Amino acid sequence: MTVQQSSDLDARAVELDRSHVFHSWSAQGALHPMVLAGGSGTRVWDHSGRSYLDFSSQLVNVNIGHQHPKVVAAITEQATTLATVAPATAHLTRGEAARRIVERAPGGLDKVFFTNGGADANENAIRMARVHTGRDKVVSTYRSYHGNTGAAIVSTGDWRRVPNEYSRGHVHVFGPYLYRSEFWATTPEEEGERALQHLRRVIECEGPTSIAAILLETIPGTAGVLVPPPGYLAGVRELADTHGIMLILDEVMAGFGRAGEWFALDAHDVVPDLITFAKGVNSGYVPVGGVLISGEVAATFDERVFPGGLTYSGHPLAAASIVASIDAMSEEGIIDNARRIGADVIGPGLADLAERHPVIGEVRGTGVFWALELVADRTTRAPLPAALIGKARTELLARGLIPFTSDNRIHVVPPCVVTDDEVAEALAAYDDVLTLLDEEL
Amino acid sequence: MTVQQSSDLDARAVELDRSHVFHSWSAQGALHPMVLAGGSGTRVWDHSGRSYLDFSSQLVNVNIGHQHPKVVAAITEQATTLATVAPATAHLTRGEAARRIVERAPGGLDKVFFTNGGADANENAIRMARVHTGRDKVVSTYRSYHGNTGAAIVSTGDWRRVPNEYSRGHVHVFGPYLYRSEFWATTPEEEGERALQHLRRVIECEGPTSIAAILLETIPGTAGVLVPPPGYLAGVRELADTHGIMLILDEVMAGFGRAGEWFALDAHDVVPDLITFAKGVNSGYVPVGGVLISGEVAATFDERVFPGGLTYSGHPLAAASIVASIDAMSEEGIIDNARRIGADVIGPGLADLAERHPVIGEVRGTGVFWALELVADRTTRAPLPAALIGKARTELLARGLIPFTSDNRIHVVPPCVVTDDEVAEALAAYDDVLTLLDEEL
Ligand SMILES: Cc1ncc(COP(=O)(O)O)c(C=O)c1O
Ligand SMILES: Cc1ncc(COP(=O)(O)O)c(C=O)c1O
Repeated sequence: MTVQQSSDLDARAVELDRSHVFHSWSAQGALHPMVLAGGSGTRVWDHSGRSYLDFSSQLVNVNIGHQHPKVVAAITEQATTLATVAPATAHLTRGEAARRIVERAPGGLDKVFFTNGGADANENAIRMARVHTGRDKVVSTYRSYHGNTGAAIVSTGDWRRVPNEYSRGHVHVFGPYLYRSEFWATTPEEEGERALQHLRRVIECEGPTSIAAILLETIPGTAGVLVPPPGYLAGVRELADTHGIMLILDEVMAGFGRAGEWFALDAHDVVPDLITFAKGVNSGYVPVGGVLISGEVAATFDERVFPGGLTYSGHPLAAASIVASIDAMSEEGIIDNARRIGADVIGPGLADLAERHPVIGEVRGTGVFWALELVADRTTRAPLPAALIGKARTELLARGLIPFTSDNRIHVVPPCVVTDDEVAEALAAYDDVLTLLDEEL
Repeated sequence: MTVQQSSDLDARAVELDRSHVFHSWSAQGALHPMVLAGGSGTRVWDHSGRSYLDFSSQLVNVNIGHQHPKVVAAITEQATTLATVAPATAHLTRGEAARRIVERAPGGLDKVFFTNGGADANENAIRMARVHTGRDKVVSTYRSYHGNTGAAIVSTGDWRRVPNEYSRGHVHVFGPYLYRSEFWATTPEEEGERALQHLRRVIECEGPTSIAAILLETIPGTAGVLVPPPGYLAGVRELADTHGIMLILDEVMAGFGRAGEWFALDAHDVVPDLITFAKGVNSGYVPVGGVLISGEVAATFDERVFPGGLTYSGHPLAAASIVASIDAMSEEGIIDNARRIGADVIGPGLADLAERHPVIGEVRGTGVFWALELVADRTTRAPLPAALIGKARTELLARGLIPFTSDNRIHVVPPCVVTDDEVAEALAAYDDVLTLLDEEL
């Protein structure tokens, strides 16, 4: 292809996009989407060959890196054999995928319900908790994201609506976040204890026997990579047990290598009743998500109909990509790389940036899951204005790095396969751009 | 592979399924899922080579038939190029998919928001209608299914929850269904008029200015292939216009060939504000769905943030499979085949069965979208008991045909590529089994 033809493809991609594609979470008028056409490992590129270091992992999902050959091969092989099948069948690759997930989960979570993504994973975990407990309410935190769905089953008219109508809904609490403590805490221990005390009081006030589930991201992700203080999750587990409440941990973003573990909860000494996953389980090569279910919750549905489902539950292409992705992660030590590079390279590298750039208020994270909290003033901790975050985005892209930004933060979230050299390259780009931000203050 | 090895694979598939896979809409204890391992056109088979005529199209989604070579090739090519990309990018194949869908839709619906399936397509159509109108309520019918999601966004804590909380929710009405009329009607015209009158009265009683959307399956599918009487949908459109209510037509099951048209609404002289689709758009080879959006609704979000999204919106593999599937359907006259075989072969064939089998109460349908309504008594129209529907399932499977059953009905829903010979083979199996059912009465 000539240079002209390649850049024509880029122009055509933008033209079709602006004419016919409606985008998530945006005003459509002012969008200038970048074109992506290919990738490999931590790099992606457009048709003209302009290439970028992907320190966003797209939407923090490409944990295994772009175009891992084993995962691509598994998808093409399954596509050639049987691309789709109804959920009510038994499918060998689906079973193999479920087995691999179960084997990496804490003991006792033996069954998997597959969905298409993270939102419907949480949907079905909530449904299971509600039917299992016979209670309605779900407690979760303000600083959280669990997906965008909320109306289809109540608009449904047939019997499948009735077991899914809940008059008493959702309660939100504050979780631990020492840098912007809601509890006037000054140490991680204090923050953890006070956050637990707050949760306990809300549960008491809402009526413990009305609460079906506590739903938490193990490490709240989009909210800012808020690694919980030691003991917090164990305390939540204890509270849940006291009141017969199901604990659901959302590992959609934190799981499958992001936090340097198969599940982020592995570092927190807690076993929930239900785990939701998506993203890293197959790095989003095929849309998929799911729920890991404890024996106790699963048993509720041995005799009783589970009132939930979806056409593509346990899709063969998704299953094949999960099998290949988990196997490759195991064989190639990809989780270990995420853990090591987080502890030895990214963490120290970001700490060094924080020493030199006053615009950094705090560095938090683990594995390949980090946030730089940017502030206009280190004393007041006033968030850096949105316009400057926009500037940081633009400047990082100009330096060939795709950043992930959220509110006043840059999240440093490369694939788990990122190399030391790539981290060095990224740190240099961040360093440059943070200098520009410092100058604005 | 030896016969022994093949049947070992079948046994292994069942074993893994029963150990680790949790299924939709079922009690888990008593499941005996059939194994499927491969397919082609209207046929599927297990590892041992036991083969079946697929008159279910799995979950009424494999419109183009199993393993269409052009769709498989498109998936493998895209997998090899770039399997996944964030929704905020511009992606050429995604744009090409959107363009092809728009070109087949009624004029004025120019933009597509992609989702992972049918449920989240309806989710996002409802969201658009609510934000666009500034109203809450959604009117839909009791005899409908729109998907299984309903809680993730309200359990979410961050700002994305707030624009999605609605205190006034969902209202259900009766739609037209002459065979079991709710309106004491005796002709299709009367049924249509009275169903409109009922809808008008409910809208008046609920308060027209509180209603964001009327959401209808163009042809209610799982509810029984309830083809609306002439004029009904046009009447609904008029009612919606009178009150500034958005009309959403759910074409998840009815669209892309199922009803013998690109969209089932093409035969009903009605243009909605929003169309939801999934299933047939790519025959489920990759999980995908979406919303077709009118210019008027889309314009609302030019300056204003659309408060919805999902990680896999506009997934490249899904997009590639849509492009190939729509092109193949066009080039190979697959929609025409569905229309012709419905009118000339399936329709007359089922009418002939109805003449000979008293257990058939009514035959309804169009294209490759038909229902046999089975009754214990033609005079009272009492539904055939569930146990006999179970028996019909078993007997049809024993004759090598995968049926789709729902309540007291057998839905005759083969792929759009089904041949005259395959229909003849299926009619013979139905004939046999209906004879057994007649004998039970
Ligand atoms: C923690 C968490 N849960 C759930 C979701 C929703 O996943 P999806 O976008 O696949 O619906 C996300 C998406 O970012 C997430 O980060
Ligand atoms: C008319 C209709 N709408 C929506 C859905 C939900 O689609 P999905 O199962 O992909 O969520 C279905 C599924 O059968 C359907 O038939």
